[in-house]
Amino acid sequence: MTLQSLLKPRSIAIIGASSNATRVGGIPMDLLVRAGFERLYPVNPKNTEIQGRACFADIESVPEVVDLVLLAIGAEDVLAYLERCHARGIKAAIVFAAGYAETNEAEGITRQEALTAFAKRTGMRVAGPNCMGNANFNDNVFTTFGTSFQPGDPAGSTALLTQSGNMCATVYRMARRAGVAFSHVINTGNEADVDFADYLAFLAEDSATDAALCYIEELRDGAAFLKAAAAFRAAGKLLTVYKVGASEKGAEAARSHTAALAGDSAAYDAAFAATGVARAAELGGLADLAYLHGFGAKIAGNGCAILSVSGAAGAILSDAISLNGGTVPTFPESVQAPLRASIPAFGMVSNPVDLTGNLVNSNDFLFEAARLALSPDDVDVLIVFLPGYFLDRALDQLQRAAAMAAKQIVVVDTFALGDRAKLAAAGIAYFDDFDRAARAICIYGAWKMGGALTLKPAAAKASWPAFPVGEPALSETAAKEALAAFGVPVVHDALVHSEGEAREAARRIGFPLVAKLVSPDVAHKTEHGLIRLSLKTEDDVTAAYNAMVAKAQSMPNVRIEGVTLEPMLAGGVEILAGVTRDPVFGWMLTVGLGGVWTELMKDVRHRLLPVDAAGAEEMLRGLKGFRLLDGYRGAPKADAAAAARAIAALCDAVLAGGDSLREVEINPLLVLPEGQGAVAVDALVLLNAPAQPEVEKAA
Amino acid sequence: MTLQSLLKPRSIAIIGASSNATRVGGIPMDLLVRAGFERLYPVNPKNTEIQGRACFADIESVPEVVDLVLLAIGAEDVLAYLERCHARGIKAAIVFAAGYAETNEAEGITRQEALTAFAKRTGMRVAGPNCMGNANFNDNVFTTFGTSFQPGDPAGSTALLTQSGNMCATVYRMARRAGVAFSHVINTGNEADVDFADYLAFLAEDSATDAALCYIEELRDGAAFLKAAAAFRAAGKLLTVYKVGASEKGAEAARSHTAALAGDSAAYDAAFAATGVARAAELGGLADLAYLHGFGAKIAGNGCAILSVSGAAGAILSDAISLNGGTVPTFPESVQAPLRASIPAFGMVSNPVDLTGNLVNSNDFLFEAARLALSPDDVDVLIVFLPGYFLDRALDQLQRAAAMAAKQIVVVDTFALGDRAKLAAAGIAYFDDFDRAARAICIYGAWKMGGALTLKPAAAKASWPAFPVGEPALSETAAKEALAAFGVPVVHDALVHSEGEAREAARRIGFPLVAKLVSPDVAHKTEHGLIRLSLKTEDDVTAAYNAMVAKAQSMPNVRIEGVTLEPMLAGGVEILAGVTRDPVFGWMLTVGLGGVWTELMKDVRHRLLPVDAAGAEEMLRGLKGFRLLDGYRGAPKADAAAAARAIAALCDAVLAGGDSLREVEINPLLVLPEGQGAVAVDALVLLNAPAQPEVEKAA
Repeated sequence: MTLQSLLKPRSIAIIGASSNATRVGGIPMDLLVRAGFERLYPVNPKNTEIQGRACFADIESVPEVVDLVLLAIGAEDVLAYLERCHARGIKAAIVFAAGYAETNEAEGITRQEALTAFAKRTGMRVAGPNCMGNANFNDNVFTTFGTSFQPGDPAGSTALLTQSGNMCATVYRMARRAGVAFSHVINTGNEADVDFADYLAFLAEDSATDAALCYIEELRDGAAFLKAAAAFRAAGKLLTVYKVGASEKGAEAARSHTAALAGDSAAYDAAFAATGVARAAELGGLADLAYLHGFGAKIAGNGCAILSVSGAAGAILSDAISLNGGTVPTFPESVQAPLRASIPAFGMVSNPVDLTGNLVNSNDFLFEAARLALSPDDVDVLIVFLPGYFLDRALDQLQRAAAMAAKQIVVVDTFALGDRAKLAAAGIAYFDDFDRAARAICIYGAWKMGGALTLKPAAAKASWPAFPVGEPALSETAAKEALAAFGVPVVHDALVHSEGEAREAARRIGFPLVAKLVSPDVAHKTEHGLIRLSLKTEDDVTAAYNAMVAKAQSMPNVRIEGVTLEPMLAGGVEILAGVTRDPVFGWMLTVGLGGVWTELMKDVRHRLLPVDAAGAEEMLRGLKGFRLLDGYRGAPKADAAAAARAIAALCDAVLAGGDSLREVEINPLLVLPEGQGAVAVDALVLLNAPAQPEVEKAA
Repeated sequence: MTLQSLLKPRSIAIIGASSNATRVGGIPMDLLVRAGFERLYPVNPKNTEIQGRACFADIESVPEVVDLVLLAIGAEDVLAYLERCHARGIKAAIVFAAGYAETNEAEGITRQEALTAFAKRTGMRVAGPNCMGNANFNDNVFTTFGTSFQPGDPAGSTALLTQSGNMCATVYRMARRAGVAFSHVINTGNEADVDFADYLAFLAEDSATDAALCYIEELRDGAAFLKAAAAFRAAGKLLTVYKVGASEKGAEAARSHTAALAGDSAAYDAAFAATGVARAAELGGLADLAYLHGFGAKIAGNGCAILSVSGAAGAILSDAISLNGGTVPTFPESVQAPLRASIPAFGMVSNPVDLTGNLVNSNDFLFEAARLALSPDDVDVLIVFLPGYFLDRALDQLQRAAAMAAKQIVVVDTFALGDRAKLAAAGIAYFDDFDRAARAICIYGAWKMGGALTLKPAAAKASWPAFPVGEPALSETAAKEALAAFGVPVVHDALVHSEGEAREAARRIGFPLVAKLVSPDVAHKTEHGLIRLSLKTEDDVTAAYNAMVAKAQSMPNVRIEGVTLEPMLAGGVEILAGVTRDPVFGWMLTVGLGGVWTELMKDVRHRLLPVDAAGAEEMLRGLKGFRLLDGYRGAPKADAAAAARAIAALCDAVLAGGDSLREVEINPLLVLPEGQGAVAVDALVLLNAPAQPEVEKAA
């Protein structure tokens, strides 16, 4: 646990410590003194004592080599002081000062680069700069100038990890109102050295932490995040994230705020899906999920039984659960029949259950209804809607039901009259809003059901031929041959250089056929008329050959390598599969149906590499248009399994190709009827010029 | 205002009045006495005085003909007592008792039918049964056994109208927490006589009401609702609705709860769109919209400027506004430049604006930033994010900005420390949650921008031929001819009855052509192989003719009227337009692109009739796939205007056909290149058997 000194320090020096408990150098002094932190050394040449503690003129005078220094001094003085701390043998520091890369100005950017270089050279772990610092409630350590976290705040097992100081305080307050208690609060700042994923990796191993609430603007190190997130999943700890930038305006604002790399929203979605992150749709959702996680042991999924004293509330909750991806399973007759015995005809008993006025009349009615509603296998959670004024008289029955049940009971009371603590003591969760309850239950249940998708990359099955130096792309023929070596079935073609060769090849291949102009200089040939379909005679072929060559000759800087002829396959469904590189998370596969489906309807699925055949088939089956592959309107079923194998082979090929590749796409991948396979009709392999990758990343 | 006696009574008798202020007959007594309501007459043969008021043995003894009676007696006694009230000349009653149609049992249903018949016969307006009653805060009248509404609650101009007693109380409490004050609270109950739309029509004319918050499960009278909603729009009053049943489970639960007609969710969407209703996505949204409406005069749309002391909050708000349909327009240079002068390079100034730490340093900075941010024409609302602890020092500047501005300022403070009343006094709206603020602003702004779409139906341009008695559908030929009379361009076809006629007609029409079997007994012919495309020779036609006739002969109960031949049109884009009848709202038009677009992608638009050509074109342009009509990938633009005219003609035809029609569909409507028109290739006209309409409605 490399961040031990930073997050669980046993001794702390504060450079620039102040007697004024409202200043950056005074707040952490005040907090730590009030927390009774003993090995605390204020450093300030102007004082001999600060807030009752002996003050030292400089770090060299401090009587021990502290675990951690807090630098509450201006940016211009930070680096020199860090050097002195390093010379003293200190291993960790927090830099509060602003004036670094967040300024978007050369001086600040250079200053941050120097800080990064310092940390790299010395091995000292430097948090910040431009951060609010941290709090560790279990160990009573407050290394922050934020005032939202106070000694005496209850310690718990939830960590809060944010890239914004304001959102750190906001989420903390929201979660505290819900009764959530914290292990750590961490504001990462500019992440010049210690980055978001470093903290997450620490928290994954921290025995005091079993959940992390994260506010993310942009990640710097996607691979490290994925690894830490997988560690959370493996440890059964909740990782829940609110990520800004779902809209273009929001992404722009987040980018401007952090000056981090621009992450693609789809890549974040794919990354969170790959690691089974519970993603909050609203900032407040983080607090709700942490709250629910406190009851989490009894929640296995998001199948919901609903008991309600109001038919309306049952309907509203059913809507909210269904719209958020949960289920409201219809009860079996063995549950409905006994409920019906106690509920008049106008009360629904199939789920949701309308308890009607019976609650008032019978001592055991609610208990019995809860027992029945919890009994079906497809029920994971029981939601009970009770207006607050009913809660007192229902409490005993609910307590008994909760004590007996292996599943979670959640009370929803829109009158907000419930005693959250009393209910929690009985193991009952409580919400005062329909939609927040439904969202939390659905997202949390889905998180419980989900697993991490991360796969180990398979060993490369083949290798790419030497890439042509200085070329932006492989020819189509070369692209298909290269992919074929990795197991992608391709349509082989004949390359011809004259009318005569074309006629002869056409006779050999048979009709109908497709002719394409071969050139490394044109990426999308259809738009330029450089692909001709349905050629049925030798004359058709000759005419197409001449027209395409003439067209290409009329375009500037287009080299003509010839024309390919290939059989035009009949039947089948066209899909596309492409792999692009996200600057944060690396290779990402996109799968969709051909043409307008992808372009107009955005009916695509994304997943980070590696992707195996099972994963590719899941992606295909997740498309709205999958029914087109599945025997739509009497058409033969397409060979989705073969398509998935071809896509997996594409992914293997991309991983083997590494940094030389910029993008690889099969479009179309023709999926033939079941048992007949799938075949890449066209392929595009874009290359990185050797010097380009860094330039591209910085762009 | 026919409901005057019911909602603004000057004198009230309570049948079954009680001294016990916790009973149904005691609560309204208690409320009215405490409210100082003078002409109040408890009726109970067992008492001479109740809660300090003289009590009467029966309604006949009450010394005046009261405006309203409340019946706090059992269902079995209600009707007889109503007859006595009617005999006494009383014009309005509220029936609290349950035991009517909501029981789903024959006795209760019959009892309710008798109540409806009574009201119809006597003209007495009867509210309920099975309702909680009403409250009128301006006139201090509490005719309810609900206890959430109390004398002394502030009176205001917002009405609450719900189909559920529990949700009535829930929304009231939510809105009161936001500071909303009410004119009326109305719980409609079973609506045996006075229905939802009746109340809405009253509120549209009620001078004390300028907004209505509605909770709807199912409407009984769609046409009356549309009329009342249009009256709200015309009066500039806010009508905001939360409708359960967006999911199948929710719809099922709502249906069971009210035993009302099952409304189609799409029809409700269309009805709300047609009348410009502000639809809340969550129950709490009703309260938020009412709250914002209190500041509504200064809000003209949902273009938002955002000032924030936190870059993160700016990003989150930008996301939330964008995702809820609002805009965050980029400021012009004339606004950015002066902002930039006061904000360091790292603070974004283009909108959202990151105020950075400057707020603390300058007295006029926030005022000046607000003035600038409010200045662009495309800004309707200024959202200022300030953590609560900043609010005090910012208040003076915000107040000055609000006083100066013709647009609304909304403060968002996720720390929930703001003084809502103090801000309201300065004309500043306040939210403590990003998403609730964004949703309310976006929905409210859209409501302000929107207009009612309701059109008057045009005079019928033609008439339908006599409908064949007992037939479920017109033949395709007859269907197209009938629509053609209303101005729908159709492909005319030749009806043939033999191979020989087929060959001759084919020669006359020319190739390629399409052959279709004509039968009133098969609705979807493609699936049965009864449509053959691309027939290129006379032999093709003969073969198709024989195959289809043989196929039809092999199907049970299929009458064969012949085969039609028509030209197969090349080019163009296929769309579909169909009109179906919703049991609540009547005729609804559905428009979509052909085939898989509609079936798999659900890319359709709905609108209630009447629809004119402009409306139809808006629907087409609203399709995700509209680009296919708009010159996609170099194809010629399709004649969308002609398609819209054809669709409008279809709608005219349906309105002229009236109750005899069950459903009319053009599929496909082939939209040819611009200037070449659109033509109905196939049409389906389903008929109602004369006796069927009522049966269908009751199903």
